[in-house]
Amino acid sequence: MSSERLIYLPLGGAGEIGMNAYVYGYGKPGKERLILVDLGVAFPDMDTTPGVDLIFADMTWLKERADRLDAVFITHAHEDHVGALGLLYSALNVPVHARAFTANIARRKLEDKGQVADAVVTASPWPETVQAGPFKVGFVPISHSIPESSALVIDTPAGRILHSGDFKIDTDPGVGEAFDADLFADLGETGVKALICDSTNVFSRAPGRSEAELPGEITRLVGEAKGMVVATTFASNVARVRTLARAGERAGRSVVLLGRAMRRMIEASEATGVLSDFPKVISPEEAQDIPRNNVMLIVTGSQGERRAASAQLARGKYRGLEMKEGDLFLFSSKTIPGNEKGVIRIMNQLSEKGVDVVDDSSGLYHVSGHANRPDLEQMHELVKPEMLIPMHGEHRHLREHARLGESKGLTSAVVVNGMMMDLTADGPVVAEYIDTGRTYLDGSVQIGAMDGVVRDRIRMALNGHVLVTVILDESDEPLGEPWCDIKGVPETGSSKAAVVEILEEDLNQFLLRAGSKTLSDDDKLEEALRRIVRQSAQNEIGRKPEVTVVISRMR
Amino acid sequence: MSSERLIYLPLGGAGEIGMNAYVYGYGKPGKERLILVDLGVAFPDMDTTPGVDLIFADMTWLKERADRLDAVFITHAHEDHVGALGLLYSALNVPVHARAFTANIARRKLEDKGQVADAVVTASPWPETVQAGPFKVGFVPISHSIPESSALVIDTPAGRILHSGDFKIDTDPGVGEAFDADLFADLGETGVKALICDSTNVFSRAPGRSEAELPGEITRLVGEAKGMVVATTFASNVARVRTLARAGERAGRSVVLLGRAMRRMIEASEATGVLSDFPKVISPEEAQDIPRNNVMLIVTGSQGERRAASAQLARGKYRGLEMKEGDLFLFSSKTIPGNEKGVIRIMNQLSEKGVDVVDDSSGLYHVSGHANRPDLEQMHELVKPEMLIPMHGEHRHLREHARLGESKGLTSAVVVNGMMMDLTADGPVVAEYIDTGRTYLDGSVQIGAMDGVVRDRIRMALNGHVLVTVILDESDEPLGEPWCDIKGVPETGSSKAAVVEILEEDLNQFLLRAGSKTLSDDDKLEEALRRIVRQSAQNEIGRKPEVTVVISRMR
Repeated sequence: MSSERLIYLPLGGAGEIGMNAYVYGYGKPGKERLILVDLGVAFPDMDTTPGVDLIFADMTWLKERADRLDAVFITHAHEDHVGALGLLYSALNVPVHARAFTANIARRKLEDKGQVADAVVTASPWPETVQAGPFKVGFVPISHSIPESSALVIDTPAGRILHSGDFKIDTDPGVGEAFDADLFADLGETGVKALICDSTNVFSRAPGRSEAELPGEITRLVGEAKGMVVATTFASNVARVRTLARAGERAGRSVVLLGRAMRRMIEASEATGVLSDFPKVISPEEAQDIPRNNVMLIVTGSQGERRAASAQLARGKYRGLEMKEGDLFLFSSKTIPGNEKGVIRIMNQLSEKGVDVVDDSSGLYHVSGHANRPDLEQMHELVKPEMLIPMHGEHRHLREHARLGESKGLTSAVVVNGMMMDLTADGPVVAEYIDTGRTYLDGSVQIGAMDGVVRDRIRMALNGHVLVTVILDESDEPLGEPWCDIKGVPETGSSKAAVVEILEEDLNQFLLRAGSKTLSDDDKLEEALRRIVRQSAQNEIGRKPEVTVVISRMR
Repeated sequence: MSSERLIYLPLGGAGEIGMNAYVYGYGKPGKERLILVDLGVAFPDMDTTPGVDLIFADMTWLKERADRLDAVFITHAHEDHVGALGLLYSALNVPVHARAFTANIARRKLEDKGQVADAVVTASPWPETVQAGPFKVGFVPISHSIPESSALVIDTPAGRILHSGDFKIDTDPGVGEAFDADLFADLGETGVKALICDSTNVFSRAPGRSEAELPGEITRLVGEAKGMVVATTFASNVARVRTLARAGERAGRSVVLLGRAMRRMIEASEATGVLSDFPKVISPEEAQDIPRNNVMLIVTGSQGERRAASAQLARGKYRGLEMKEGDLFLFSSKTIPGNEKGVIRIMNQLSEKGVDVVDDSSGLYHVSGHANRPDLEQMHELVKPEMLIPMHGEHRHLREHARLGESKGLTSAVVVNGMMMDLTADGPVVAEYIDTGRTYLDGSVQIGAMDGVVRDRIRMALNGHVLVTVILDESDEPLGEPWCDIKGVPETGSSKAAVVEILEEDLNQFLLRAGSKTLSDDDKLEEALRRIVRQSAQNEIGRKPEVTVVISRMR
């Protein structure tokens, strides 16, 4: 038996939806040559990550082993697979392989962060392969909700891995390659050691639906509309954007793309040849001179993002265009959990304008980009792997997917971020547990999720913040009275007097009685003052705020 | 024509789901005698109301006219209809009428806030009525997801109003009165001037489903479970809680009620006679001595609330009980928009424990308590009102409901909070626009939504907070160097030096160069220092934090 081993280590994406980052390695233990598959982001929310701009996997483990990393492979151009590339590339500094459309987006990610885009190498699809250390990697076209999505065939001395990437089984996806069952069956014939497989839709029991089911219904809806039509979807779903644009064109409407990402994705698609027949578009300025029933806007912001075109149009005029009574707004999209309130806010703002809103609740105007449970089963059967390792999903998705595999006799395991699996033998075995976590892009700074910065923000948001300033003279006697400032704290409480005055009075009473031992010791004094503020506030406003004490000594 | 008029004025609930509060008035304009229907709360969220405990309608208008208020009527005991009673009662100080079960809960609301509960008068159902000024009000039993829900017949000199309250059409609701179509048809026969009608489910196109559809499936699910079974639902859905308990009993399981609200609701139901046949329950302590496959817990926290029993059990041990591999957790509930992430968090924590989670996605284990679109149409047809005014719903619900009515030939109008409608004539006419808004219970203090307290919290959460302390001597010269403290701000930025040091250095440079005009003027100096901090932070960390400047002068 060889002392080399084949390892799989998810750093992100296995235990959540988003921030995908999967490491494969081959070699002697601790000396494996490594490749990284995907480098994505997750999106912050006010509940757990207020103020944060982006979230991605903590790459410390990989950075410390950057000398063993041979390449990065990007399966497709969704943000949760490529979004962190520009932020993390400089620490990795190896070639980044991706197919043409994905590479176009990946290069932009690097350029946006002031990096040289040369590192991105455009890959040809399977049966072409890329050699990276002991790995031979092929990009196998697979259908998803973005052009040129790829599964990866990763051939290693210990056998073949099939990393599905995100996928659905769609034999007529509109834009991009159709799912080719024969091709995956062929890959299976050759023998697949491990299928590392998308899990996000494992709880969806109906067979997945094709993108081809939508054009008829969308064309009918747009054709029947009387006023202006506005539609939103993910900009990266180029097939959908084309369907929407064609529906507009067929209804005699001029099409406007609103939102940077919307224009960007269509440009990238045309530049890389995945899209050649997109209807002519006009500018927002041109649209102002056209009767509103001859205009169709396709806009960003399907998730209710406050700054996106959809939210701007819901609030009022945007780029000279304004929705009015009798217009139609179509959400050709699903609301991702957590975004409901933002989407509902837009729906109500549109309702106030008299705009008719149509969403995906009828099932007519949106299909998912991920494989549902029956499609996952079909994939298992086509590939017939020796083992199934569910990836990309929350814990519940990974667990359900593993159970699904096991119910069909497949060896499977629930592998979450930080579990380094040895795949060399017949079944997956935990080789090691790696510390993993999340890194936040916060403004222009990368901070660790555990640094306490965000925790402090949450505490200030929940409790408010009281500042206490005390000045002491050379002999540690208070100079004047203590000063309080409040932010995010009610101005008056139960006694109806100003809260700051109550706090200052209580602090002053304490200082007048405090002994020199306390007054001369910054830590003791600070702790005492904080305790007084919290207790006094509790009595007055029923809450203990965050407290910052500044002690100045005149020495 | 009489100079008296009949008015309808929603202060809360018309434009949102939650915080119901509807005023009716009759009399000469500006001198109408008034009644209030419902006094509910809405629940805060981190996005828009961090730190807030409860939200309710701004009652300023009504408080200023408290001398014209004759009574409060509570339709049912859900928090969004009765939750603000204890907080606002002292300003209203009139009899509160409710049926027995609702009155039980309403009294507790008053007692919880240290008020005398005598104000709550138990009402008998229709055909009994309560006289309140010019109004004769009857409580008409109607099915909903809580016992003894009532529509109100409000007879006035200008005609009859039917205020539906929250309702569904359920002829077999399990606990509480069945929907009696004949009764509503009879009310219609007599002539109904206006139907003020629940709108929350107007977008649900399927006919509503009865509570009676659930016991079979729930009993089967619990009967087939192997380990411990834990089920959650709204505690106030007494019929559901009984169905769950009976399923446990039938499967030979001892039933435990976990969570204060769960025990409270069953107690109130039994005390008021709406429930007489609830299975025997045991304490958590007793349950510890019973094999886990003979135990069923019914717990609070169906919406993922962090402190509720469900979340505690998902995290670990709670009251000596712990979930394990092979146990079953049932969400016999729908997730309210905005609560998805909290519910999903629990699902994943349970998945990590190996617990099987079943939710309402199959439709087998939950039915809604509100009237779907076909049921609303049935209500319109039974009552045959002269006009339909949709209430309780977001703008989109009210608008859709009004359109639904109009499509069937009913005079209707979209009436949102603050629109005082004159119902005297044939159709609703806007009499006046009233300033309305939201009040927050924040700790023990009531603050206005526009007071800026919550806005400051959100800003601190998004941007962090920098404190600057500067001390000046008698001649306005800086004493020592400025001092900075940061909270919720990264400690280091682009220059890798401590952010506070960078800020202090920039502030110090400014102070050394500042002229006496600036140094002697607190406002000018504060503004200058704030600007420096924000600019310096922008360069260093890519973000402009909130800044509080404290200037101390040694005079």
